[in-house]
Amino acid sequence: MTDRTRPYNFSAGPAAIPEPVLREAAAEMLDWHGSGMGVMEMSHRGREFTEIATTAEADLRELLAVPANYRILFLQGGGIGENAIVPMNLSGGGAVDFVVTGSWSRKSFSEARRYADAAVAATNDGGAPLDIPEPAAWRLRPGTAYVHLCSNETIDGVEFHALPDLRALGCDAPLVIDCSSHIMTRAIDWSRVGLAFAGAQKNIGPAGLTIVIVRDDLVGHALPITPSAFDYKLVADAGSMLNTPSTWAIYIAGLTFKWLKAQGGVAAMDRLADEKSRLLYAVLDDSGGFYGTRVAPAARSRVNIPFFLRDGSLDDAFLAGARERGLLQLKGHKSVGGMRASIFNAMPIDGVRALVSYLQEFAVRHG
Amino acid sequence: MTDRTRPYNFSAGPAAIPEPVLREAAAEMLDWHGSGMGVMEMSHRGREFTEIATTAEADLRELLAVPANYRILFLQGGGIGENAIVPMNLSGGGAVDFVVTGSWSRKSFSEARRYADAAVAATNDGGAPLDIPEPAAWRLRPGTAYVHLCSNETIDGVEFHALPDLRALGCDAPLVIDCSSHIMTRAIDWSRVGLAFAGAQKNIGPAGLTIVIVRDDLVGHALPITPSAFDYKLVADAGSMLNTPSTWAIYIAGLTFKWLKAQGGVAAMDRLADEKSRLLYAVLDDSGGFYGTRVAPAARSRVNIPFFLRDGSLDDAFLAGARERGLLQLKGHKSVGGMRASIFNAMPIDGVRALVSYLQEFAVRHG
Repeated sequence: MTDRTRPYNFSAGPAAIPEPVLREAAAEMLDWHGSGMGVMEMSHRGREFTEIATTAEADLRELLAVPANYRILFLQGGGIGENAIVPMNLSGGGAVDFVVTGSWSRKSFSEARRYADAAVAATNDGGAPLDIPEPAAWRLRPGTAYVHLCSNETIDGVEFHALPDLRALGCDAPLVIDCSSHIMTRAIDWSRVGLAFAGAQKNIGPAGLTIVIVRDDLVGHALPITPSAFDYKLVADAGSMLNTPSTWAIYIAGLTFKWLKAQGGVAAMDRLADEKSRLLYAVLDDSGGFYGTRVAPAARSRVNIPFFLRDGSLDDAFLAGARERGLLQLKGHKSVGGMRASIFNAMPIDGVRALVSYLQEFAVRHG
Repeated sequence: MTDRTRPYNFSAGPAAIPEPVLREAAAEMLDWHGSGMGVMEMSHRGREFTEIATTAEADLRELLAVPANYRILFLQGGGIGENAIVPMNLSGGGAVDFVVTGSWSRKSFSEARRYADAAVAATNDGGAPLDIPEPAAWRLRPGTAYVHLCSNETIDGVEFHALPDLRALGCDAPLVIDCSSHIMTRAIDWSRVGLAFAGAQKNIGPAGLTIVIVRDDLVGHALPITPSAFDYKLVADAGSMLNTPSTWAIYIAGLTFKWLKAQGGVAAMDRLADEKSRLLYAVLDDSGGFYGTRVAPAARSRVNIPFFLRDGSLDDAFLAGARERGLLQLKGHKSVGGMRASIFNAMPIDGVRALVSYLQEFAVRHG
């Protein structure tokens, strides 16, 4: 444990990185393990970086219990890139169905229309509070190539706490999940998932790395217009070294995976996410309306928590006071307004407690 | 100046980074300029990172004297990504002509065929020594959307020391250059270039960042199948923040640009590249055939220098001896064999001198 001297950073991403990871990266900057090179300076094909990448992949596989018949790919382009890359690789130009529960799934749907016959199977659009549409009511088309959902909507704060069992809904298409903002905070039920993708910059590491975990049988069906750098089969066959990958980001992800394992892995993070989010929602719910949220309790995200001051004219004062106390990046997304506390794995519970205290005091002073 | 304790790293990329850049990055890892956040932890839309990105772009513009009517884009996907992204954005599905002088331009040509009527206007394939085909003999088609060349072939060691004037060849199409491996080692004559792209991982910073510099009038013509994340117009309109960019890589690039300015800018790097490469070629040429090269003198790269021991059975001994002296990553690309010394801007002339001494001693001992 290090003494806490740093502020608490509630950014939605790029987001806080565990302090021990930052310290190790700084210490190894000029010389990784006696190699005489910093990690940024290594050939991605050399034995040193091969060791870094292989270990990172193995630790990721262990942490998320990824079955042997799923490939782990290290790509570039982020979630917005995958919005095109997934339909290029998986749709075959046919039907694909989207469950829209917020900004990210809506964006994914729009982008997929360039490549496939994309349709909205269900949406919570206009709902108040925002909720997750009941799976039994999803309009899944026979013959759809896949069903896409965003398992945690970073901007809107809507989270799937369980993934749907598509087969039980009479659909044998694979489920695709964009799990960027809650990956590593809970187990993934791979029996229900064909492909999961995540930008690294929330729970895993720096921006510029996209992780795709895809079942073997879904690889190898890319449309001819798919760029080689984003053709899952070419990338998988090259062990994610078809082009030079984001080597530094893979290294930091690897350090984060080691840190996660030392913390007790995903199960420990799952419990912690529960505890942290309960603390925060409790003070918001108990504020007598001074603070409000817009998401139905059962669909509330444990990692991205948008909230609103009843009196929006106090927003600037709230943010200024937070900053003074070392509580950073609490401003809500511009499309939603208000505040947002993102409490990913790297946010210690003491950071949430500090925010809770401030929320209470601010409400007393201005209530 | 710091005392030299590190080995010399001749990697072709990811490659050596100036030591002062590494030291500054390590020192700021937990707290950038009193912000309380490391750079990897900052929202890409916050004022801290906006300052980092804006300064990096302005310094890049200054260093390469990029005219005001060219946009600078920070993208992901590397050179192999751009091989698809350029024709998606610029070809309109029409004719595009390629000058093939090595592995990279050949790859670019192959990939472009997915999106355009790509043809080889000239090639040095099979030439011994490798040379650059005379521009007057290039078969440029009327109405071609652009002409592509790789201005420095990293693998083969072939460099354009001057860019062709397409107008003088009767062609009014824009010239596209892949300048990944020699960007920042010489000025770019923008009057002859419509678009320049470069992966950052050789002369600029870490892998995972692609820099595209494109003339205004070439932006806004993307094919409908272009992923949003790679549509130059969408990216330009969003100031390279359409998706989360590779923030860490942009930061390191920015530190490298500051270092370059302090060294005297691109003009100083140009002189240094001349001096370093002359030293190295001289010892290879004067070895009485103990070492050989395969590139015509006028087309020799100043930054990627492949060379071969006459007696290939000595390769392993050569590499082992080099490693013992702290001369790292000299093994040639697997497709070419032999050795390769990559001497980018971050390689000090003392590193080249150390290599030269070793080359001479090894030849004496084994010649």
